[in-house]
Amino acid sequence: MRLRNVKNKEIILSNSTSLIRDPFLLKGKWKEQFPNHYPIYIEIGMGKGKFLYEMAKLNPTINFIGIEKYDSVIVKAVQRLEEERLPNLLLVRADANCIDDIFDHEVSHIFLNFSDPWPKKRHHLRRLSSPIFLKKYESIFDHSKKIEMRTDNVDLYQYSLVQFSQGGYIFKEISFDYHKDSMPIVTTEYEDKFSKDGMPIYYVFCEKDCH
Amino acid sequence: MRLRNVKNKEIILSNSTSLIRDPFLLKGKWKEQFPNHYPIYIEIGMGKGKFLYEMAKLNPTINFIGIEKYDSVIVKAVQRLEEERLPNLLLVRADANCIDDIFDHEVSHIFLNFSDPWPKKRHHLRRLSSPIFLKKYESIFDHSKKIEMRTDNVDLYQYSLVQFSQGGYIFKEISFDYHKDSMPIVTTEYEDKFSKDGMPIYYVFCEKDCH
Repeated sequence: MRLRNVKNKEIILSNSTSLIRDPFLLKGKWKEQFPNHYPIYIEIGMGKGKFLYEMAKLNPTINFIGIEKYDSVIVKAVQRLEEERLPNLLLVRADANCIDDIFDHEVSHIFLNFSDPWPKKRHHLRRLSSPIFLKKYESIFDHSKKIEMRTDNVDLYQYSLVQFSQGGYIFKEISFDYHKDSMPIVTTEYEDKFSKDGMPIYYVFCEKDCH
Repeated sequence: MRLRNVKNKEIILSNSTSLIRDPFLLKGKWKEQFPNHYPIYIEIGMGKGKFLYEMAKLNPTINFIGIEKYDSVIVKAVQRLEEERLPNLLLVRADANCIDDIFDHEVSHIFLNFSDPWPKKRHHLRRLSSPIFLKKYESIFDHSKKIEMRTDNVDLYQYSLVQFSQGGYIFKEISFDYHKDSMPIVTTEYEDKFSKDGMPIYYVFCEKDCH
């Protein structure tokens, strides 16, 4: 992610009504932040928010929450939302490591789009599909436990398939060339770039049976 | 598999002491066919038998059974075994569809090496990783349930990952370029050819928890 500096980003962020400033205070109360009780889908590492914004527009009966660590990135998503507010999309600036301090059995679905591959072996536990994160997800998921991942990184992808499987997730769909197998309607910024360059997008959709 | 005609193949097959002629009669009695009670590993679609022969030589504390449908192919494996008999390797000429009529909770490990990819969608249930076959395997596996697959066919591989997962298998190892990630000691004829041509070998090792 190229981090261009956005002028007045502090002002933009503090004036936003879509950005949740103290997400930790809302733990266990996220469903109350929306005018309905539709399921909550989150994207961890939302970037500039294109994917989640378009998903929220297309799916009015799902509530979306985007999580992003960097001010300089999330400000882009905030700006987009200021132009056209969506009632079913909220943004949170937070580190993924704190995910289990933000949600308490409230999330139905997690999107992991083009997450940091952390290529060095000693950093693998930082991957968003590592056993450490899968354990955190256990405490944020409600009765539905679904993870959808897209990546261009084959090493992260192989690792994630093994981790998801060992974590009890069952694969619903797998594709080593997602744009060839089933062109998605909504794409991320990275995805558009990689796909344009002819690189395959690896995809997995998996679910944990709660019965 | 190129099927060159072997002269006198009926005579070679009928004289072999390693080839089991009536495998159906041995259902439930396979452990008695070996001079010990080591676990039984099978390869379905063994071809000319290079892989299983070398595995058997390298692993004297495992009993191997190779299954192959075609006379003209299995005769090669028979010839190899006639040259040097191995006490822990038996051959069976049979159709994979009959696998559950041959074994009864006696098999610990199944190798599926370069199985027919059956590319047409209407033939997918013929794949050795289809739900039909996974169900058959349930009745041949003993308390250990392990499947190891190698293929050059990405479509078969993706399909198999989903089927294994949905069938309750947990992934232990996945590789989209097996010869790069961990060069195996024992290889099949196909594998040598594909690898020499620079094609990636897809690999998965999965296990079903019986507890």
